[in-house]
Amino acid sequence: MTETTKSWIFRNRPQGKLTSEVFELQEGPVPDPKSGEVLVKACYVSVDPYMRNRMNNIPSYIAPFKTGLPLEGDVVGKVVESNTSRFRKGTMVTGMCPWSEYFVVREDSVIPIEDTGEAVHWLGVLGLTGLTAYFGMLDIGQPKAGETVVVSGAAGAVGSIAGQIAKLLGARVVGITGSDQKADYLTGILGFDAALNYKSEKNLRKALFHLCPDGIDVYFDNVGGDISDAVLYRINDFARIVLCGQISQYNNNRIIMGPRLNALLLVHRALMQGFIVYDYRNRFDEARRKIREWMNTGKMMAPIQMIEGFEKLPEALLGLFEGINTGKMIVKV
Amino acid sequence: MTETTKSWIFRNRPQGKLTSEVFELQEGPVPDPKSGEVLVKACYVSVDPYMRNRMNNIPSYIAPFKTGLPLEGDVVGKVVESNTSRFRKGTMVTGMCPWSEYFVVREDSVIPIEDTGEAVHWLGVLGLTGLTAYFGMLDIGQPKAGETVVVSGAAGAVGSIAGQIAKLLGARVVGITGSDQKADYLTGILGFDAALNYKSEKNLRKALFHLCPDGIDVYFDNVGGDISDAVLYRINDFARIVLCGQISQYNNNRIIMGPRLNALLLVHRALMQGFIVYDYRNRFDEARRKIREWMNTGKMMAPIQMIEGFEKLPEALLGLFEGINTGKMIVKV
Repeated sequence: MTETTKSWIFRNRPQGKLTSEVFELQEGPVPDPKSGEVLVKACYVSVDPYMRNRMNNIPSYIAPFKTGLPLEGDVVGKVVESNTSRFRKGTMVTGMCPWSEYFVVREDSVIPIEDTGEAVHWLGVLGLTGLTAYFGMLDIGQPKAGETVVVSGAAGAVGSIAGQIAKLLGARVVGITGSDQKADYLTGILGFDAALNYKSEKNLRKALFHLCPDGIDVYFDNVGGDISDAVLYRINDFARIVLCGQISQYNNNRIIMGPRLNALLLVHRALMQGFIVYDYRNRFDEARRKIREWMNTGKMMAPIQMIEGFEKLPEALLGLFEGINTGKMIVKV
Repeated sequence: MTETTKSWIFRNRPQGKLTSEVFELQEGPVPDPKSGEVLVKACYVSVDPYMRNRMNNIPSYIAPFKTGLPLEGDVVGKVVESNTSRFRKGTMVTGMCPWSEYFVVREDSVIPIEDTGEAVHWLGVLGLTGLTAYFGMLDIGQPKAGETVVVSGAAGAVGSIAGQIAKLLGARVVGITGSDQKADYLTGILGFDAALNYKSEKNLRKALFHLCPDGIDVYFDNVGGDISDAVLYRINDFARIVLCGQISQYNNNRIIMGPRLNALLLVHRALMQGFIVYDYRNRFDEARRKIREWMNTGKMMAPIQMIEGFEKLPEALLGLFEGINTGKMIVKV
């Protein structure tokens, strides 16, 4: 086995737009697991938009990254050395782990993956992004058959699953995405009823007006900003707006301005609710059972965009903000 | 009885700020009630902020006013001539009625007031404003004992009741209002725990920080705009924001800009919900029973600001947007 391991260090907090300046590749010795610890070799590493927020020094539901230490995120890896009876060498595990090729973690900070055939999906449809789509759509969105559901960031990791769940519930689903290819993917492959490319659409409000002739009952919002404004103008009475992400805003180093539209929420008696998937922790098993069932019966697809090479991690994360991914972006180490 | 009656006609739709130009006093013959109709003499007329929205030609939960016809709003009056067995002459009634001293309405568009001692309250605490406070606070806000509740427009018709209800539920209640006198009224008379005058407060965010040391769990929003922005910066996880009114925005003839703060709702898993009191119509009796109980046991006050004279109706309505009222503004005819 190798004696050294590479790690991506969080060098300094970005001001505004995330750039590669923030990351530094370091090499050091592979650490030894102490009692109750395991040494893990990373196989797949997740990159997620929320990581941008952890780069700000602002207390939130999850602690900010510390400069000078490796970044961290969800990882699927293999135990290569165990100093606990809980894991045998060779076991596949997943959890929130440092961005290192090899790393040591405590036995209680990862969980084993029983079915190695689905290992990579633990970073996607069975992981936090799939669970986010599941709870956001089912608990807050609650689309009924025949209702119109709009998903922004629709070809992304969460949006692609959220839209499929709405379809399974019998809703009419319209996706908003950032390229014609992705729009085609949504309607042609994932079964969305319609999709639009907001980048080429001159008048988003008008486009939504035409694509949603019966108005919008549920809006699953991954992006915020102008796109969400356009959606709000088309909501129906008693609409539900699921605040899942605001990726359009994460790279701003100050609060930007937008139209005040709360009066629309008021007259339409709409509900807007933010949520964090960790709050549903005690229902993760239930959700994973249901998602597996949909997957195994061919009712759900779990699109993944894989990039190879540990060195590519910053590039993959930066790419999320450019919308280069279709489905869940994962780096294969 | 008089042969003629005065009416306030809706002359033209205001562009932006409401002015007295919009109203025209006309005099005409007192109409005769046909079969199934009653002639009513107005005793008390309600003026309410939402009326500004009915002046725009925009379809909403309630039809826009028609130019050339009398404005309308909630009225308490006395039947002076009846052409139906449903009402005897002399009965006090209330309902949505034209702004006329004398007017004819169909028998099913007003309801009788049994206890004439509480007649005026049918435009306030027992009317739509009291019911709005009741359902907004209890159904959406749902404050628990010990939680912190902030009410904007706190000395207004709805806010003054909403805050008292939150107190009755055991919450700590902070009012935001527009003068020192009103702030004193809220704490000294209505029993709010604290109040601030947003007009004299240089830094509203800071003031709220100090007045709400444990954060804000429920925000009952009657005003929107900058005041609501300041509140959002202080919300706790799982906060509930009751969108009841946006009076600061009603006089704008276009959507104005403000900071995009949805990310705050997201990380705090907050709920923001608009509502319209009419949606609770089948629970009005329940609410009125409860409010009467609070009133009769001295647990609730129903502040009213009375202006005398039918001619003063436009002035009273305009005054709402200047914040001249403490409690429910009513014009005595």
